[in-house]
Amino acid sequence: MSLHGTSPVTTFGPKACMLQNPHAVMHIQDPASQRLTWNKPPKSVLVIKKIQDASLLQPFKELCVFLTEKNMIVYVERKVLADPVIQADESFAAVIQKFCTFREDLDDISNRVDFIICLGGDGTLLYASSLFQKSVPPVMSFHLGSLGFLTPFNFDTYQSQVTQIIEGNAAIILRSRLRVVKESREKNARVDKKGIIMTKGDSEGSRKVLNEVVVDRGPFSYLSNVDLFLDGHLITTVQGDGVIVSTPTGSTAYAVAAGASMIHPNVPAIMITPICPHSLSFRPIVVPAGVELKIMLSRDSRNTAWVSFDGRKRQEICHGDNITITTSCFPVPSICFQDPVNDWFESLAQCLHWNVRKKQNYLSSKEDVF
Amino acid sequence: MSLHGTSPVTTFGPKACMLQNPHAVMHIQDPASQRLTWNKPPKSVLVIKKIQDASLLQPFKELCVFLTEKNMIVYVERKVLADPVIQADESFAAVIQKFCTFREDLDDISNRVDFIICLGGDGTLLYASSLFQKSVPPVMSFHLGSLGFLTPFNFDTYQSQVTQIIEGNAAIILRSRLRVVKESREKNARVDKKGIIMTKGDSEGSRKVLNEVVVDRGPFSYLSNVDLFLDGHLITTVQGDGVIVSTPTGSTAYAVAAGASMIHPNVPAIMITPICPHSLSFRPIVVPAGVELKIMLSRDSRNTAWVSFDGRKRQEICHGDNITITTSCFPVPSICFQDPVNDWFESLAQCLHWNVRKKQNYLSSKEDVF
Amino acid sequence: MSLHGTSPVTTFGPKACMLQNPHAVMHIQDPASQRLTWNKPPKSVLVIKKIQDASLLQPFKELCVFLTEKNMIVYVERKVLADPVIQADESFAAVIQKFCTFREDLDDISNRVDFIICLGGDGTLLYASSLFQKSVPPVMSFHLGSLGFLTPFNFDTYQSQVTQIIEGNAAIILRSRLRVVKESREKNARVDKKGIIMTKGDSEGSRKVLNEVVVDRGPFSYLSNVDLFLDGHLITTVQGDGVIVSTPTGSTAYAVAAGASMIHPNVPAIMITPICPHSLSFRPIVVPAGVELKIMLSRDSRNTAWVSFDGRKRQEICHGDNITITTSCFPVPSICFQDPVNDWFESLAQCLHWNVRKKQNYLSSKEDVF
Amino acid sequence: MSLHGTSPVTTFGPKACMLQNPHAVMHIQDPASQRLTWNKPPKSVLVIKKIQDASLLQPFKELCVFLTEKNMIVYVERKVLADPVIQADESFAAVIQKFCTFREDLDDISNRVDFIICLGGDGTLLYASSLFQKSVPPVMSFHLGSLGFLTPFNFDTYQSQVTQIIEGNAAIILRSRLRVVKESREKNARVDKKGIIMTKGDSEGSRKVLNEVVVDRGPFSYLSNVDLFLDGHLITTVQGDGVIVSTPTGSTAYAVAAGASMIHPNVPAIMITPICPHSLSFRPIVVPAGVELKIMLSRDSRNTAWVSFDGRKRQEICHGDNITITTSCFPVPSICFQDPVNDWFESLAQCLHWNVRKKQNYLSSKEDVF
Repeated sequence: MSLHGTSPVTTFGPKACMLQNPHAVMHIQDPASQRLTWNKPPKSVLVIKKIQDASLLQPFKELCVFLTEKNMIVYVERKVLADPVIQADESFAAVIQKFCTFREDLDDISNRVDFIICLGGDGTLLYASSLFQKSVPPVMSFHLGSLGFLTPFNFDTYQSQVTQIIEGNAAIILRSRLRVVKESREKNARVDKKGIIMTKGDSEGSRKVLNEVVVDRGPFSYLSNVDLFLDGHLITTVQGDGVIVSTPTGSTAYAVAAGASMIHPNVPAIMITPICPHSLSFRPIVVPAGVELKIMLSRDSRNTAWVSFDGRKRQEICHGDNITITTSCFPVPSICFQDPVNDWFESLAQCLHWNVRKKQNYLSSKEDVF
Repeated sequence: MSLHGTSPVTTFGPKACMLQNPHAVMHIQDPASQRLTWNKPPKSVLVIKKIQDASLLQPFKELCVFLTEKNMIVYVERKVLADPVIQADESFAAVIQKFCTFREDLDDISNRVDFIICLGGDGTLLYASSLFQKSVPPVMSFHLGSLGFLTPFNFDTYQSQVTQIIEGNAAIILRSRLRVVKESREKNARVDKKGIIMTKGDSEGSRKVLNEVVVDRGPFSYLSNVDLFLDGHLITTVQGDGVIVSTPTGSTAYAVAAGASMIHPNVPAIMITPICPHSLSFRPIVVPAGVELKIMLSRDSRNTAWVSFDGRKRQEICHGDNITITTSCFPVPSICFQDPVNDWFESLAQCLHWNVRKKQNYLSSKEDVF
Repeated sequence: MSLHGTSPVTTFGPKACMLQNPHAVMHIQDPASQRLTWNKPPKSVLVIKKIQDASLLQPFKELCVFLTEKNMIVYVERKVLADPVIQADESFAAVIQKFCTFREDLDDISNRVDFIICLGGDGTLLYASSLFQKSVPPVMSFHLGSLGFLTPFNFDTYQSQVTQIIEGNAAIILRSRLRVVKESREKNARVDKKGIIMTKGDSEGSRKVLNEVVVDRGPFSYLSNVDLFLDGHLITTVQGDGVIVSTPTGSTAYAVAAGASMIHPNVPAIMITPICPHSLSFRPIVVPAGVELKIMLSRDSRNTAWVSFDGRKRQEICHGDNITITTSCFPVPSICFQDPVNDWFESLAQCLHWNVRKKQNYLSSKEDVF
Repeated sequence: MSLHGTSPVTTFGPKACMLQNPHAVMHIQDPASQRLTWNKPPKSVLVIKKIQDASLLQPFKELCVFLTEKNMIVYVERKVLADPVIQADESFAAVIQKFCTFREDLDDISNRVDFIICLGGDGTLLYASSLFQKSVPPVMSFHLGSLGFLTPFNFDTYQSQVTQIIEGNAAIILRSRLRVVKESREKNARVDKKGIIMTKGDSEGSRKVLNEVVVDRGPFSYLSNVDLFLDGHLITTVQGDGVIVSTPTGSTAYAVAAGASMIHPNVPAIMITPICPHSLSFRPIVVPAGVELKIMLSRDSRNTAWVSFDGRKRQEICHGDNITITTSCFPVPSICFQDPVNDWFESLAQCLHWNVRKKQNYLSSKEDVF
């Protein structure tokens, strides 16, 4: 059974059929059956640790020692090691010697890491995602303490679990990312009579987000009107606190707080959720993963707006700027604890208390009594 | 650009890759580019007319005359012609002579109709869907009066529009349907230790729905507890007025009234929406189209529940019964007026007033004043 | 500090003032300070026990023995004593001898009971409410097991708590009830040009509800259109599964499941909540407790609708019938465990898990990490 | 019929009664019957005009001429007259001569204005409210163009309508305001064992809001945890984008965008609405108007938060600060166009499209067809 549903038939009744278009055919392996393997044995591992959390130091050190003993090359960001507690630990000094260190935004490790281990909360996976703007190595995420949406592994049995990943053949889920480009349009760009945008401008490079792009009012009390285009057509204007464009992974983050339904990460879709919209009927919508979205200030808006990427890198959007959003072809391959379905429902229950109820019916009526 | 998003890469970092599984690969043509054509010229057309609506008589007759003049064989359900006003129209008698008539549930026309024309509201397409439990011929739906979600064509220019369809090459959207099987389980069926259902029983045949399957409290004031399984695992228990399992097409029908987000019909997904759930945290969820859902009364529930199919054929669910829901491999090919994206947003605006706003900001503040 | 807020001033600027209208002045004692006392020592107590719940038998017997030893006259409904387990308990036979028994709908005990003790769930208080259509004696409600919204007392210390109530001076909350009258209008009743109803008809007597009146689609798949009038003016037409008119007490019952905000029982208000409305903008509303609401089938509706009272006594509404709803002048005086504010927030947390969260921020971002 | 409902009885069953507490009795005139009158004929009128809106100039001048001819003393804020278009109008110069002008925050006109006329949107009434921190003269608000929630009068017939107000006897609605005090607590303030706050600190003066106080994350991506106290007890902690404390008047402004139910302004209540809360179960609540609310940063929160008043005067909240909110005893007396009920439902329809529907049932089913 495919997670995408049965391949639809291509004939309809006795005489109708789909017009063949070989260029538009995709070959998609059923996400429910996707498993990870290795071309060559992995040799290098990037360990990401939430900083400023003392409870993580001991697991971090244990894990690094374990990996070193397995002859893995361990990559660690330099500032993680700058922690005074780590510096003061003399027994750990010999281990640190063997680490490869790097600095965010300065050193490119994108082709040197075979897989990634995250310790400590959903933020670590978001951070890992930001380090790899193109192909992302497989990620194994441990929660320490309470379960996160993106951190299915329990640290208690880390040795056997890491060993198993290194040996290969693990269930994975490909978490889609959004590719976001912010452009300053030249002044002669136009919206033609049909509302189609005629763009001309310079891109500032793309950014990948795993959860969401948010356009909001920033420090203002009220949002500028913001126009939303889909495949070049104006579909609506947002009035309110802002708008969230999220992946299915992000549907359980900020979007759900703003009222969205929750989408399993294997559904190829993009969610558009208004934040406190003025219109009572502005319900969130889910569109196919393949569309191109564009966000711009409305012509008559008086203020500017602000954009952020997975909750980071806030910047202003001025008149003439536009934000273009598509699905990236570089997803984040997250290693599953059980499988994509069970991991997700476990997270819904643990992280969002989804449909957790008192057993007793609070709507009990007289009919229950006599 | 594919409506399903870019085909994800299958290598991750320097050494990881997806385990190849040729049996699990699907070949999907980009839904955004799907167009209809004909193997042979269409010769027969089924005309579906909402009954008991006098305003439809004149358009119905006009259309039938037009089709007859085009040498199409017109199929009409016998009860449509039983309308006294039609019987009394002597000028129409000659046209009726040429019709092929049939009776619902008695005559099988599934292999005799090349395409379908619906006149008069979303209900006509739901009805057309129910007539074709397997392959569905292409459907062209006219609204008379206000636009419906499923009826994009305006009748004013029906002649040129119908002619164009007959000639071939129209944009279509494949609206997925759900295949629903109601089974009475034998008493020795068990849920094993892992919560996996071991079924054994007799199916009563499947039913296809275009909008939704609803399990609700029927005439009772309170719902029995209802268990919901996904791919054999218990994922939650519903307490409330009921639960809606809908296609993306159905997400804008009953599901949206119950609080769901709206899903474009090209997203391969199934929506699960509780109706007035007791738990405040029971938010609707969206799962991949390929899963198998099962609904059963909870063991400790005192009342029975009721199931209905696209709002019809209500029947009781007793202890031991189960409802199995999967995506059907026989979608409804709906002919688009413009294309799948524009048609949908037009429907959102017209049918649901989606984000229709006063231009003036009702949240205007003092800062707007001075 | 008054729970109704400060009495508003009656002069506005240098020269304006409120037109005096002595007939319209109400004298309301601050609900936050309301306490119960006795004119004469209470002598008779009605004990209400949820039936068909074996776990309640022992507490019930203990309580009855305790009350008898305190020389209270104990009233018990006859069918409670019909329970075979009670009949079989020989040691309890002597106690039963002293009970006063009565039959629902046959024996009037409304002037013979000084206070009421409920054992076992919100349904018992709804039942107690139904027994007293006019003045209601004070009610003390024990939960056995999980806390209910209407059952604040824990049974563990029942002796001291009951003793204290008998001695007098307890905090109470007056839970408002709705007075509902169903009338069959004569056919010459009219809605005049301004939309004001000109009624003429025979009442069938009023009914009091503590939670809500519900008008819904009953066994039909779709609701008839239902018109809603406030003080004689048509305010809206309901299309959907139905409409809930609830007290603040009922706002945390069915209404909250249908999406309503939750209202503290000391707010003098009536809540109107649509059930699965077709319109996305049909948000619940809260109106002053003093209005008169009327519900009727719309003239053009094809089906009938159904009405129920605190989830009970379902009956059909036909064309020409109308349901009139006002606030009753006979509230239910519920004895508080702590006070009206703390009891309510304790119930929100226990019964609805209101704002129960994971301590860890699931929206954690990269900024939390590095 | 009283808008507060019937005065509840004070005896319960044969022997129980309410403990008399003369100090806690309020005398409230039924809001539904409230009408305005004058102690002495009004002589001075403040005219508030939205600035930077050219369409208002002509109505503004007409109104001022009309008032002058009626021998009213017209107050206008100096910056309104600074508009170059007004300065350039020589025919208006003679009228301006007779105006009394003032400067916001510098000149106190609170005892010199007999009534107020607002031109141009809800913001003008919020502004008028801010000018009168204590007693507020009656306000008559005209919308120019689309109806606002707070601006019921149409300018077309301003002459007769203003004349009628001056002559006295108009329906009014007293819109409650919140009194907000921001205090910096001394460091020795404590929360005692029961969670009750022991405050000691210096107030910075109170501020009145007509719509709402908002505490939000300001320019940060994530909100600090914020604690909410009611009558000194911690009732919950807010995690999300913020929290809105609003009057019933404000329930249809920012609160409704954040998901609140809508409350008629005659209900004596305060609404508490979370903004994008992390918890799915954090539903808005409505508490009695008489409570005291307090908002503080949680002890363990890392960031600060921001507070604003009717969308204005944003300022930071640091550790140790607290915001205390009660209902003010100085409401805004708004003159009604029809009456408090009809004006409100007219606004719901016009400003929020409340329950505006397509006449045709979009949930139409097969049953509607055949």
